[in-house]
Amino acid sequence: MTKTTRVILAQRPTGLPDEATWGREVVELPPPGDGEFLVKVDHISLDPAMRGWLNDVRSYLPPVQIGEVMRAAATGTVVESNHPDFAVGDAVTGMFGVTEHAVTDGTDVRVIDTSIAGPATWLGALGTTGLTAYHGLHEVGEIKAGETVLISAAAGAVGSVAGQVAKAHGCTVIGIAGGPEKCAWLEEIGFDATIDYKNDNVLRRLREVAPKGIDVFFDNVGGEILNAALANLRRGARVVICGAISTYNDERLPPGPSRYMSLLVFRARMQGFLVFDYPDKDAAAIAELAEMMASGRLVARETVVEGRVEDFGRTLLGLFEGTNTGKLVLKIA
Amino acid sequence: MTKTTRVILAQRPTGLPDEATWGREVVELPPPGDGEFLVKVDHISLDPAMRGWLNDVRSYLPPVQIGEVMRAAATGTVVESNHPDFAVGDAVTGMFGVTEHAVTDGTDVRVIDTSIAGPATWLGALGTTGLTAYHGLHEVGEIKAGETVLISAAAGAVGSVAGQVAKAHGCTVIGIAGGPEKCAWLEEIGFDATIDYKNDNVLRRLREVAPKGIDVFFDNVGGEILNAALANLRRGARVVICGAISTYNDERLPPGPSRYMSLLVFRARMQGFLVFDYPDKDAAAIAELAEMMASGRLVARETVVEGRVEDFGRTLLGLFEGTNTGKLVLKIA
Repeated sequence: MTKTTRVILAQRPTGLPDEATWGREVVELPPPGDGEFLVKVDHISLDPAMRGWLNDVRSYLPPVQIGEVMRAAATGTVVESNHPDFAVGDAVTGMFGVTEHAVTDGTDVRVIDTSIAGPATWLGALGTTGLTAYHGLHEVGEIKAGETVLISAAAGAVGSVAGQVAKAHGCTVIGIAGGPEKCAWLEEIGFDATIDYKNDNVLRRLREVAPKGIDVFFDNVGGEILNAALANLRRGARVVICGAISTYNDERLPPGPSRYMSLLVFRARMQGFLVFDYPDKDAAAIAELAEMMASGRLVARETVVEGRVEDFGRTLLGLFEGTNTGKLVLKIA
Repeated sequence: MTKTTRVILAQRPTGLPDEATWGREVVELPPPGDGEFLVKVDHISLDPAMRGWLNDVRSYLPPVQIGEVMRAAATGTVVESNHPDFAVGDAVTGMFGVTEHAVTDGTDVRVIDTSIAGPATWLGALGTTGLTAYHGLHEVGEIKAGETVLISAAAGAVGSVAGQVAKAHGCTVIGIAGGPEKCAWLEEIGFDATIDYKNDNVLRRLREVAPKGIDVFFDNVGGEILNAALANLRRGARVVICGAISTYNDERLPPGPSRYMSLLVFRARMQGFLVFDYPDKDAAAIAELAEMMASGRLVARETVVEGRVEDFGRTLLGLFEGTNTGKLVLKIA
């Protein structure tokens, strides 16, 4: 038996999650059965999508139920195994949840090569985050060399990878981020221009840096930033709906993009996607991202918070406050 | 010289156009020069898109300027010709404007065969209206047999053709229209189900008639009807943005579709288009529509108002009041 601490959903939040949202439980995990193994978790991924999983509405995944362990991607090490494909000592990643340990049958668990990059990067640029950026640009955005690509939340986990991937494919890349430090970092990693939404007039600045309009908008934010982009499309533009973090804590459904009729004027499309939709293309995408990283064309940054699983709730708020640059990860001390 | 009366834009409207929007002028047209011909106009098309042409904003066509003849598609007869391809007596259609006569060099003018259908139909189901329905469904909606297609303003010019085309291609077709009479007519012409937005709760009724959701939404209306549709998509759905008549007279930019994040949940896309974008496919589309009409599978209805060109402004309001069924046309007495 393994004593483990984990975080459960105690009550559904209204607006921003707070202390009352989360509960802590200590349980004794039974030893792994036949075909199972035990993982000691070392890093937990924090993602904007988590906010949506807390709402009791029909969506692409069932909501996390009250009393259930909070859903999360994580990395860890196999510490006991009755599974032929996973050996003690293997570094692995999977949807282990916000927990110190997990018993799993290996479904959707992958072994990671920590000689290429550390666990936090396997949750970020070489994990779901990187795949989200890659599939969103290629499968939905259909980026082509020479096009102008705009990315919101560009200093975030997905945005910062997306910008570098678009750049590597010959696009001109513009990033929107909050504050001069984030913008400076984006220029360091190769973005052609940046817009500081906290200090610039986004609409005006966008017209300055992309006077001919944008071909692809990779949106993680929604709200007024989406509107500004819609007003500045080129003919045949593609708006990739990856997320809408500006609205996730709104207590009522926020207004939609008032400029959606730009889709008609510019014969453009707006399309949503989920990272899980292209499983056949994941391996090639990860290989390309790993190669880009090895050759220095992809810089992965993580904001690693060290703590215990109980620190999950407080750490999650950083996403909505915009305090992280790159991937936000909780490292279990 | 030909004395002719025509309608000009006198001032830009705020909200609904009114009497002050329009001016009347009587001019002497010079005789047609070399390569030109004179058309006596008999029918003028009234279209929701006209409202957009009155606003001084950059769009897919330049705005009609103050003092300019109002832009409009029309039909007429050639009464004088110095053009090799157009003979006196030919019935023609083109963008002649709201005028009794027009001199043209034949650009974008086509001869119409009035033995197939009358002039009003050549402005409707066999004209731009029919092409809008056809290209929207095929090129943007990518309809496939067996899919469920929802159409708003279904008893309108474009909507009523779109429903019959989708039906002919093996789709289940649901129409949204205002009032029991329009809905009854839609069922008469083959719609599988209807939603009366004036008397039904659209969201609830849509769930009843399309419990598995919709594959294609052909939207002419915008506003709350678009929202209701977004809440009821199937995975991979296509939302075709053809128009947004519910909002065209709003003095401020109305709120956008608050449920646009359904595009992500359902991996759906929303795409705008213009009828002019598929010139290579127009002839085949018109041939198919004419064949459908000849075989009784396409019923074209027009609401024909008889009057003088000066009646244009008053007649146009009918579009926004929802008084017409099918194509609204002004027949010049």
